[in-house]
Amino acid sequence: MTTPHSDSPFLAACRAEPHDRTPVWFMRQAGRSLPEYRAIRGSGSILNTIADADLSTEITLQPVRRYGVDAAILFSDIVVPAHAVGFGVDVRPGVGPVIDRPFECRADLERLRPLEPETDTPYVLETVRQVVADGSVPLIGFAGGPFTVASYLIEGAPSRTYGRTKAMMLGDPELWNALMERLADMAIASLRSQIDCGASAIQLFDSWAGALSPPVYERCVLPFSRRVFEGVADTGVPRIHFGVGTGEILHLMADAGADVIGVDWRVPLDVARLRLGPDTILQGNLDPAVCLGPLDVVEAEVADVLRRNGDHPGHIFNLGHGVLPEMDPAVLAHVVDQVHAHNRGS
Amino acid sequence: MTTPHSDSPFLAACRAEPHDRTPVWFMRQAGRSLPEYRAIRGSGSILNTIADADLSTEITLQPVRRYGVDAAILFSDIVVPAHAVGFGVDVRPGVGPVIDRPFECRADLERLRPLEPETDTPYVLETVRQVVADGSVPLIGFAGGPFTVASYLIEGAPSRTYGRTKAMMLGDPELWNALMERLADMAIASLRSQIDCGASAIQLFDSWAGALSPPVYERCVLPFSRRVFEGVADTGVPRIHFGVGTGEILHLMADAGADVIGVDWRVPLDVARLRLGPDTILQGNLDPAVCLGPLDVVEAEVADVLRRNGDHPGHIFNLGHGVLPEMDPAVLAHVVDQVHAHNRGS
Repeated sequence: MTTPHSDSPFLAACRAEPHDRTPVWFMRQAGRSLPEYRAIRGSGSILNTIADADLSTEITLQPVRRYGVDAAILFSDIVVPAHAVGFGVDVRPGVGPVIDRPFECRADLERLRPLEPETDTPYVLETVRQVVADGSVPLIGFAGGPFTVASYLIEGAPSRTYGRTKAMMLGDPELWNALMERLADMAIASLRSQIDCGASAIQLFDSWAGALSPPVYERCVLPFSRRVFEGVADTGVPRIHFGVGTGEILHLMADAGADVIGVDWRVPLDVARLRLGPDTILQGNLDPAVCLGPLDVVEAEVADVLRRNGDHPGHIFNLGHGVLPEMDPAVLAHVVDQVHAHNRGS
Repeated sequence: MTTPHSDSPFLAACRAEPHDRTPVWFMRQAGRSLPEYRAIRGSGSILNTIADADLSTEITLQPVRRYGVDAAILFSDIVVPAHAVGFGVDVRPGVGPVIDRPFECRADLERLRPLEPETDTPYVLETVRQVVADGSVPLIGFAGGPFTVASYLIEGAPSRTYGRTKAMMLGDPELWNALMERLADMAIASLRSQIDCGASAIQLFDSWAGALSPPVYERCVLPFSRRVFEGVADTGVPRIHFGVGTGEILHLMADAGADVIGVDWRVPLDVARLRLGPDTILQGNLDPAVCLGPLDVVEAEVADVLRRNGDHPGHIFNLGHGVLPEMDPAVLAHVVDQVHAHNRGS
């Protein structure tokens, strides 16, 4: 018996091992940009859709079929664990996560009991199992970074300034640390359960960590992200660490211990390797907004990303952030074809 | 007769000339965070408030009186010139600028005729004259960076992704360049008129330029920001260049030719000077959200900003972005006192 996906270019690139073609997948490849998603999604809360394993399996696989991407990413949301332990979370269409009673004080810690994936999120495990059974490509499991999840729980809704979150992390470090420990352990429990069910890799989405200054990130966030990566290290699956606008903290994010660093379009790949070292394995980093432009521009920008990586075997092509709802799937299909046709010079 | 404000620590710092105390002012120091502002503001469109020179003069001076800051910043908005030439702009409370008919095609250029400040924005000139007549501190005039103004005109409302804007700049460079030229010339006309009426310095707010990758910024934005700075160079007033999340393009923003570079909290001042050169004059860069935390934390973070500047004479203390509406004015007053009490080691 061979290891599942032993010939996967995605998994090879995650380990900088030789492989034939540059692998590509897209953050948010499943979801609103796809007509086949809108056709089956229904109109209720997205959390209800996620709780339906058959539906979530189908949604996870839709972009794999359409695009021929090299990995599937679980259709779920980073607030699912907090929702599942009863914190009172909803994801409002066009808005994002909203919280009934935001996290404010020590007593709120009691509302964040440890996650028991088998009983709290059985639908997630079932979706993972079903996608893995499909077997066409490796599945990436994921969790939200403790900081990004904390920011939702504290702000109560998406924020541009993270004022309450920063006030708590700076003003009440004891409470902050206790919250971050719980969220880190919740992420570990969720990730381990996904890996147990067959996920081939995991990504930690600390999407908003770039809102922090380097010293604050290092002191208040890095230890907990490191805890997450250490907490799944023994599984041996590749671990990806991603955030937006993280140029100033990229070296610290790399210190957290992931195998692959995701970068957005603000830091060219060659610049990222100058900063992090030539052996760094990178994921990214086409500006999603480029895909709203004409095809010749998309092609030129894709070529630029590939050129900046050169023939480095440690590159997973991706967007620098998620697919935008208004994006034309035909453009993404074209990007996949271009990346796959690219001669890596190997 | 002496030059006005010849003993101003703000103007001295803008030129890295000797001065007694570190100057400080705050972006958005005038406005929603002040009860005296809310008391007189009324409830109509902010553009109506700006069109009332007496009211705008009072609002501009309120924070000077309350805080003892070292500079006033004109109470206005970066979309005022586009509004004044009839493009159809409003500033919606809690939302930001919204556009009746967003900029889409070549024909829309006709809706952006050259600004004639004396007839299009006489209220701005009158406000500048009145604040200058008050004479207590130097007045900073300002304009929006061509990119940031273009992003509002194209998106039609505040955006997180700047998808339409990027699609136009990459997909139709000819139209983009024509738009940027008009907006640059509009900024020049507005800034020159403010300087003619007595503004002692100017700031170009290219707040959202950090959304761009370095190559795209260099090709599509830098030439037009440079045009603005060159267009006011002969006036001799200090020119400040500011944006948020600009770490990756800081060297390019500096290339645009301003005298002072504003940095947000993501790039520590000592790191900024390592990148831009030891003689660089900097403005910033306390994270505004820090001011929502307890006072001892605020003090520690203010001290850290001052420490990272060291005894460099080219530092204007500021926040890394605007004052938040929910901020306690007493905290900002405390920051001013701390900065002024700071021994610069000179």
